[in-house]
Amino acid sequence: MKVAVLGAGAWGTALGVLLASKGIPTALLARRAEHAERLQAMRENRDYLPGVALPAYLHPTADPEEALLGAEFAVVALPSKALEEALKALPPAPWYLSATKGLLHREGELWTASQVVAALTGRPVAALSGPNHAEEVARFLPTASVAAGPEELARRVQELFSGPTFRVYTSPDLRGVELGGALKNVLALAAGMVDGLRLGDNAKAALLTRGLKEMVRFGTAMGGEEATFYGLSGLGDLLATAFSLHSRNRGAGERLVRGEALARLEDRGVVEGLYAVRALMAWRERAGLELPIAEAVYRVVYEGLDPLKALSALMAREPKAE
Amino acid sequence: MKVAVLGAGAWGTALGVLLASKGIPTALLARRAEHAERLQAMRENRDYLPGVALPAYLHPTADPEEALLGAEFAVVALPSKALEEALKALPPAPWYLSATKGLLHREGELWTASQVVAALTGRPVAALSGPNHAEEVARFLPTASVAAGPEELARRVQELFSGPTFRVYTSPDLRGVELGGALKNVLALAAGMVDGLRLGDNAKAALLTRGLKEMVRFGTAMGGEEATFYGLSGLGDLLATAFSLHSRNRGAGERLVRGEALARLEDRGVVEGLYAVRALMAWRERAGLELPIAEAVYRVVYEGLDPLKALSALMAREPKAE
Repeated sequence: MKVAVLGAGAWGTALGVLLASKGIPTALLARRAEHAERLQAMRENRDYLPGVALPAYLHPTADPEEALLGAEFAVVALPSKALEEALKALPPAPWYLSATKGLLHREGELWTASQVVAALTGRPVAALSGPNHAEEVARFLPTASVAAGPEELARRVQELFSGPTFRVYTSPDLRGVELGGALKNVLALAAGMVDGLRLGDNAKAALLTRGLKEMVRFGTAMGGEEATFYGLSGLGDLLATAFSLHSRNRGAGERLVRGEALARLEDRGVVEGLYAVRALMAWRERAGLELPIAEAVYRVVYEGLDPLKALSALMAREPKAE
Repeated sequence: MKVAVLGAGAWGTALGVLLASKGIPTALLARRAEHAERLQAMRENRDYLPGVALPAYLHPTADPEEALLGAEFAVVALPSKALEEALKALPPAPWYLSATKGLLHREGELWTASQVVAALTGRPVAALSGPNHAEEVARFLPTASVAAGPEELARRVQELFSGPTFRVYTSPDLRGVELGGALKNVLALAAGMVDGLRLGDNAKAALLTRGLKEMVRFGTAMGGEEATFYGLSGLGDLLATAFSLHSRNRGAGERLVRGEALARLEDRGVVEGLYAVRALMAWRERAGLELPIAEAVYRVVYEGLDPLKALSALMAREPKAE
């Protein structure tokens, strides 16, 4: 058997390293030929995952036919905004595992990545999500993740990806698992703003506690199970993102409040939270849900609201029962 | 009116600073006369809360009669292990606010601090708990906290302590609020061990996610409300503790795995988690609850189990549904 990983960024490469290190032949599809050639020549992804040696069973390529030929399934590790264009140009796989944590506003509805993949390919789709910084997973530091979706696929993902340092749990709640992974990026932007403003550990903890409630309120309204958001793919991923120096989303919030221009925030890679919060706000107008933290993030990022004012307003509501 | 704060450590001093900065006359009772004299002479608590000026309305003293005379209530900010002896030696107050986050094994049962205070004084008791590092609260960095207990007392606490940077919520779930504050210290020890072993942000996030579940399982079995543990006094306090350089509990876990002797862990102040985990284990034998993280912490601290083995064992259970 063989697996194809679509997307040779940090997370696609890390997942390829995981599989290949277990002796599973894995194609790693880069979008640009030069990138594939550099990966092949250096046996390292210096642009997105420096310092990690690519195992022998990992085969970088820019040729979609070659990557997908004979693959049991394809791992989708593309930025959410590139999903549609990329998948339309690729030959089909029997089924897909979405490793993309994004939220798209599409045809008046909010779509998770697996929904987009399913709509574009007509194939079964599972998702993998959890507290999984690529930089640590690829170095075999211990963590856990959740494979969600149709039971048979989730079990197959569990079987293939599980190892001594990467524990995979299964869940039937595909919707909840994906929503957690997408929403935590918005909260990580807020956490980064707290960091940038030096408001302290107390304020950050209080904000994230309220943020998790906001995630639950929104996520259950969107069809996820409450317990999922308290698990690895919700709270777990939120913590890994909001407290890590690796996180692009947290880092973007911090850089923004320190005066970095919006246009420069993606210099170091895609910041999914910037798209998720926009999709969320566009959709929220219809749904009538109260999402004060997401709204504050949106207004700071896209409307130039002063971040200290925005975050203070979150704190300064009338005292009441918790 | 006037308030007495019992205990001039970091947290007692910070709470005194909060009240006195609002113009509320506040006595700060130190156990040692020299300590009270130093506080008075320097108008600063250099030993436990350096760099914070004591407001004019804060009156340090070592005289219990003077401190409690005319006080509307007393704030208990003593280490849990000193509670019993200290309270027995003090004149009574009309009612008490417990700011002590501890768990004691007493007469075969687990007691929270407010229970001990109530048993010793026969007076009504409320508790205050949340993501509240003294170092930040006393510098007026923003945060929130929960006042729990009899409604009238909780509202009075809310009224007196609330300010632009310190939001106080009320809760009727005294038990849940106190258990969250005590249990998070045990989880913070575990988080510190992950830090000390350099296992990474993913592993720490996964551990704390599991840890919150353990807190909920234990806390609800002990009579707390599930929602309380997901709020400021549970998750909020856990995050503030597990990710902060200020935390003595997190720091003790880190120092322990780096080879510091148990006997030296309290050089920089009381580490409540060391007592809470012991009380927990003594009690658990009777209750038959599974608390794998608390047990791992106990075995590392008191039985010399290798921390890497203990934490790896937590990760290495059979893969299953989350």
